[in-house]
Amino acid sequence: MKELEDKIRSEGIVDNENVLKVGSFLNHQIDVPFIEKCGEEFYRLYKDDNVTKILTIEASGIGVAVLAALYFKVPVVFAKKSQSNNLTNDVYTEPIESFTHGTTYHCMVERRFLQPGDRVLILDDFLARGNALQGLIKMVNASGADLVGCGIVIEKAYQDGGKRIRDQGIRVESLARIKSMSPETGVIFCD
Amino acid sequence: MKELEDKIRSEGIVDNENVLKVGSFLNHQIDVPFIEKCGEEFYRLYKDDNVTKILTIEASGIGVAVLAALYFKVPVVFAKKSQSNNLTNDVYTEPIESFTHGTTYHCMVERRFLQPGDRVLILDDFLARGNALQGLIKMVNASGADLVGCGIVIEKAYQDGGKRIRDQGIRVESLARIKSMSPETGVIFCD
Repeated sequence: MKELEDKIRSEGIVDNENVLKVGSFLNHQIDVPFIEKCGEEFYRLYKDDNVTKILTIEASGIGVAVLAALYFKVPVVFAKKSQSNNLTNDVYTEPIESFTHGTTYHCMVERRFLQPGDRVLILDDFLARGNALQGLIKMVNASGADLVGCGIVIEKAYQDGGKRIRDQGIRVESLARIKSMSPETGVIFCD
Repeated sequence: MKELEDKIRSEGIVDNENVLKVGSFLNHQIDVPFIEKCGEEFYRLYKDDNVTKILTIEASGIGVAVLAALYFKVPVVFAKKSQSNNLTNDVYTEPIESFTHGTTYHCMVERRFLQPGDRVLILDDFLARGNALQGLIKMVNASGADLVGCGIVIEKAYQDGGKRIRDQGIRVESLARIKSMSPETGVIFCD
């Protein structure tokens, strides 16, 4: 998505080979009209797949998931990262190692929100090592719902998360794929 | 908002006097068309106040904030609950005691996203003791931005958070105000 690449070039801050800050429009401040266009693009990619539910993980995936859901006309479910007394006890749970935060946390989805017969599209803001995405995929599989595919705003294609998931035969659509980045070169996208 | 009261009555689960589960439409699964109506209602309430930015806190406030922002045509900023290497170091930070999770955490907003001249509307899913809201208000005040007011989907009016904030002269609009609740009586709303 050319417009997203331009946005990353103009607003993204490359701290080092691993850290790209896009807090001005994606994961701290949300540029709502722009992220709505990303949601519309996911709809264009998956509109013929009879999606019944969008699954994401708190917090940075929620914005794009909700804006995509306006096009798909389906509910969003966001996996939680911590136990809360607002959840029922009947949950799917997966441990997820977070590179960004340097910790392992558990993500959880109440079972009643993923059912056999659901056709689930997983959306998230970033894909790098793919740990969060793998956790979400496992929960969809455990529920008996069908996984339609994944939609990612920014994929760090120089890390192996996307390859590992595509190698499982899962469709992964990324709106921007980064080939490499550094403070010197800026962001270089895949062809 | 009558439609919201009906939704809470039909889908809410009252575990005890303090815990109302509305995960089917608000804070785990998001019923996007319904929450969009809540966003539209916030717009009706604040449309003449020249809002330039909506501030919320991860994760449950993001959905309604983004859907309201579609009407206001302004960006959303969501305060983060944990340090991350995706944030710059130049942040406002406030300690917040969480009743729901039984912990104290720090919430953070990068300074560049709250500026003098901004007119900020704070939106969140719940208001009970008001600790999160007070933290957000302090950050807005510290930034030199103007606080237009607060919009809350569900206020537990039997707790003192709303009163304490209104007593500071701050406008707080809640779409549903709960007078009392229990597993026996269900949810009883304020007149």
